[in-house]
Amino acid sequence: MSKYALISVSDKTNVVEFARELNLLNYQIIATGNTHKLLIENAVSCIEIKEFTKFPEIFEGRVKTLHPKIFGGILMRRNHITDHGEAEKNEIEAIDIVCVNLYPFPKVVDRDDFSLDQKIENIDIGGPSLIRASAKNYKFVSVLTDSSQYSNFLTELRNGSISLETRQKLAYEAFAYTSYYDTLIANYIEKEFNQPKLDFRLNLQANFGLRYGENPHQKAYLFGNFHKYFEILSGKELSYNNIVDLAAAVDLVDDLDATACAIIKHTNPCGAAVGKSVLDSYAKALSCDNVSAFGGIVAFNAEVDEATAEKLNEIFLEIVVAPSFTKKALEILAEKKNRRIVKQRTKLSESDVQIKSVPGGVLIQEKDNSKISEIELKVVTEKQVDEDQLEDLKIAWTVCKHTKSNAIIFVKDKKTIGVGAGQMSRVDSARLASEKAKQFGLNLNGAVAASDAFFPFADGLIQIAEQGITAVIQPGGSVRDDEVIKAANEKNIAMVFTGIRNFKH
Amino acid sequence: MSKYALISVSDKTNVVEFARELNLLNYQIIATGNTHKLLIENAVSCIEIKEFTKFPEIFEGRVKTLHPKIFGGILMRRNHITDHGEAEKNEIEAIDIVCVNLYPFPKVVDRDDFSLDQKIENIDIGGPSLIRASAKNYKFVSVLTDSSQYSNFLTELRNGSISLETRQKLAYEAFAYTSYYDTLIANYIEKEFNQPKLDFRLNLQANFGLRYGENPHQKAYLFGNFHKYFEILSGKELSYNNIVDLAAAVDLVDDLDATACAIIKHTNPCGAAVGKSVLDSYAKALSCDNVSAFGGIVAFNAEVDEATAEKLNEIFLEIVVAPSFTKKALEILAEKKNRRIVKQRTKLSESDVQIKSVPGGVLIQEKDNSKISEIELKVVTEKQVDEDQLEDLKIAWTVCKHTKSNAIIFVKDKKTIGVGAGQMSRVDSARLASEKAKQFGLNLNGAVAASDAFFPFADGLIQIAEQGITAVIQPGGSVRDDEVIKAANEKNIAMVFTGIRNFKH
Repeated sequence: MSKYALISVSDKTNVVEFARELNLLNYQIIATGNTHKLLIENAVSCIEIKEFTKFPEIFEGRVKTLHPKIFGGILMRRNHITDHGEAEKNEIEAIDIVCVNLYPFPKVVDRDDFSLDQKIENIDIGGPSLIRASAKNYKFVSVLTDSSQYSNFLTELRNGSISLETRQKLAYEAFAYTSYYDTLIANYIEKEFNQPKLDFRLNLQANFGLRYGENPHQKAYLFGNFHKYFEILSGKELSYNNIVDLAAAVDLVDDLDATACAIIKHTNPCGAAVGKSVLDSYAKALSCDNVSAFGGIVAFNAEVDEATAEKLNEIFLEIVVAPSFTKKALEILAEKKNRRIVKQRTKLSESDVQIKSVPGGVLIQEKDNSKISEIELKVVTEKQVDEDQLEDLKIAWTVCKHTKSNAIIFVKDKKTIGVGAGQMSRVDSARLASEKAKQFGLNLNGAVAASDAFFPFADGLIQIAEQGITAVIQPGGSVRDDEVIKAANEKNIAMVFTGIRNFKH
Repeated sequence: MSKYALISVSDKTNVVEFARELNLLNYQIIATGNTHKLLIENAVSCIEIKEFTKFPEIFEGRVKTLHPKIFGGILMRRNHITDHGEAEKNEIEAIDIVCVNLYPFPKVVDRDDFSLDQKIENIDIGGPSLIRASAKNYKFVSVLTDSSQYSNFLTELRNGSISLETRQKLAYEAFAYTSYYDTLIANYIEKEFNQPKLDFRLNLQANFGLRYGENPHQKAYLFGNFHKYFEILSGKELSYNNIVDLAAAVDLVDDLDATACAIIKHTNPCGAAVGKSVLDSYAKALSCDNVSAFGGIVAFNAEVDEATAEKLNEIFLEIVVAPSFTKKALEILAEKKNRRIVKQRTKLSESDVQIKSVPGGVLIQEKDNSKISEIELKVVTEKQVDEDQLEDLKIAWTVCKHTKSNAIIFVKDKKTIGVGAGQMSRVDSARLASEKAKQFGLNLNGAVAASDAFFPFADGLIQIAEQGITAVIQPGGSVRDDEVIKAANEKNIAMVFTGIRNFKH
């Protein structure tokens, strides 16, 4: 009795060599149309599937493998005597090796030059059926779904036979593949056919090892295409906490239009500023709290030059991230081997969703893509704002958006001079922000303030006004807005409403 | 020419009525073995698939539908003249309706009374092939995968024909189904066959509407089985931020062994305590900061009684959550219609992973399941700790674990008296915690403190000691531990090392 291997591949990498080796190991190869043609051209002996099934490939290859002689050959239970009897009666011969990869739907799904019909045509039907049948019958069948598997497989086969362990591994990889493939299809047609968002599907490859999670006793993984956005130019690998802080830092500077710098610790800014130059932006951001900045993550939205690099080297920082570095700057920064230098390859996507796990499931939300430049601002006080104040208010608002709630931010001369982050009451955040300013000798007179949510009462606003703040930006919308506006007028400060809240937890 | 409908269902709900109606609408039904038997028993006219293909069902039904007459009938492009020619030549007749649901792998995958082999046997091969083929050819074929679809479908069919829109919707639901099915399989055999964690797959159903996300301008969804853990007994629906805070609150009280209460605002505790009774635990938690508690989430790990309910009704709270409520307590609490009363059905799972989205992908980590009762504590100072101190230290440590980093927690008499949360420097958190205590007239003398990470320098420890704190619990592990221990000895306080860090961001 012959031993059979079925080959039907869309990606033909190394398949000729693989098939030739199988021939040498006494496997009779069955192949579908194009694969058969390629093998024959390369003098590899094989039978075309239509000869094997005695049924033609029809509808331009839409139906070729879906035949009981094929699926019987794959699915028969070699340890069932009744299966052997039925196989014999129906002229079914066992197929022990199945090598199949699929029409490249994953490669075409995002291509603008492919129409809906062309994308749908790239949905493989026979292939997943073959793969799934083979994986189900892993006790007897080996299924190969990627050319990277060929070499080890042949080595093992040459040494005698394929172990159960290998067949299980291949079966797992097979189902990982079909699961990935159908997830992409479902997500694509959900969007394309405007279906309501009733399910959440995510299927990501890992490409980045993590030593551990937030803490050393927690295992952790990074899945997906983080490297689309970030390239590590120098220094140690990124940790879990590094990645979280890096994302927070870049999110903030991405959101500031002018040349800006942010210094992040534990996902909160301990300083952020817009500067005349990259160096100026860093010096200003650092001056807000040069104690907390120790071990921080520094992000820029413009190229880091030599002068900035020299200045950055003066204290210990975990990460410096920027869209680019001058050659000289990189040389200087690379001197410190423990610090990571990261290049931001592209602006962060606004269409990414944010995922947060909760007991039993996940919360999914759109990113907070609100932009101060697109918000209609409303001055609600007698006192109006001048141009300088307005610019500071916008910076304060943007930094506040990227600070954990409740957040109060003080800004003067385009730099933060007090950050009140992550408090359970807004009054506490305001107090914290002003204490921080005083701690670093920063004068609050003439500064402006932002609040990520409205003041529920006048007390928070009054406390801020009493620090010497001249203007406040906040969402508005409290049932007590009248009281808050009245307090602002009494304190003779300006107040701007955005109509947008910026909670961040 | 006949019109054909193929029916092959594992879940036979309403299939007899559905098939009977199709008969009335002049569809000839083709059915697989068991479905055929059921229809015939119920006097619904149908052809068994083996008569249609002229090929027997083999291997106990492992191969029955995988035949070119079936797949040709589904996949033929009705607008291609060549397909019609090939169909005629190969005696293929068009199948326009495909009604298939799958072997119940999703139902058996978690069952302990099913062996690996039995679970694998519940992986359907022919079914997904039929479903995928039909969905691919949605321009001509309707695919039904759930009995809930039958009624609307028949109504539409009776009115003439199935619209493209409906066929697209059905095709989407088909791929959503196969994607879900194969994701469960891949995740199961990944674990069962001990495969390395190279991919991340999640496929969840939504069951809960959200008005919006963290802010009103962000769309949001809750997917999965949140209701496995929580039942809303009274009040408005939960918001996105409610869910996040609820999870944080319950995580904290779940982690305390004795009768405990936690009050959460913006994911941080503004008070937590262990009490002699539920009422006592609430009163103590509230006294830590009864200002921030306004609008907070209150969680208990024991049944809420009448007295506690009365006390809870004194201030505005967003949510009260507990494993149970006495009948009377629930009546009292339900008076306030705007506040949610939530029953926690079961302890939170320790095996849930935590997901956090980052640019291009997601971070996955194990939950921080470290427990103070399982940690070996090491007193590193000359001063030792007495039993009361030890109990307070353990409570402080646990609350600290559930507070955003950097976190410093002061505890006295089993209740928090100062919470320093979410700061960019540990010294700031320590200062914040002591200021909060003073603000509410709480005496720090004799209290204990917890720090979620080690003190990098002695300054933070000294600052805490100077507040009157008598004992400190912290991970240890700084290169300057010697200095920190020396400072503790000089201040005559006790210090305990856990060897475990509890960052939370």
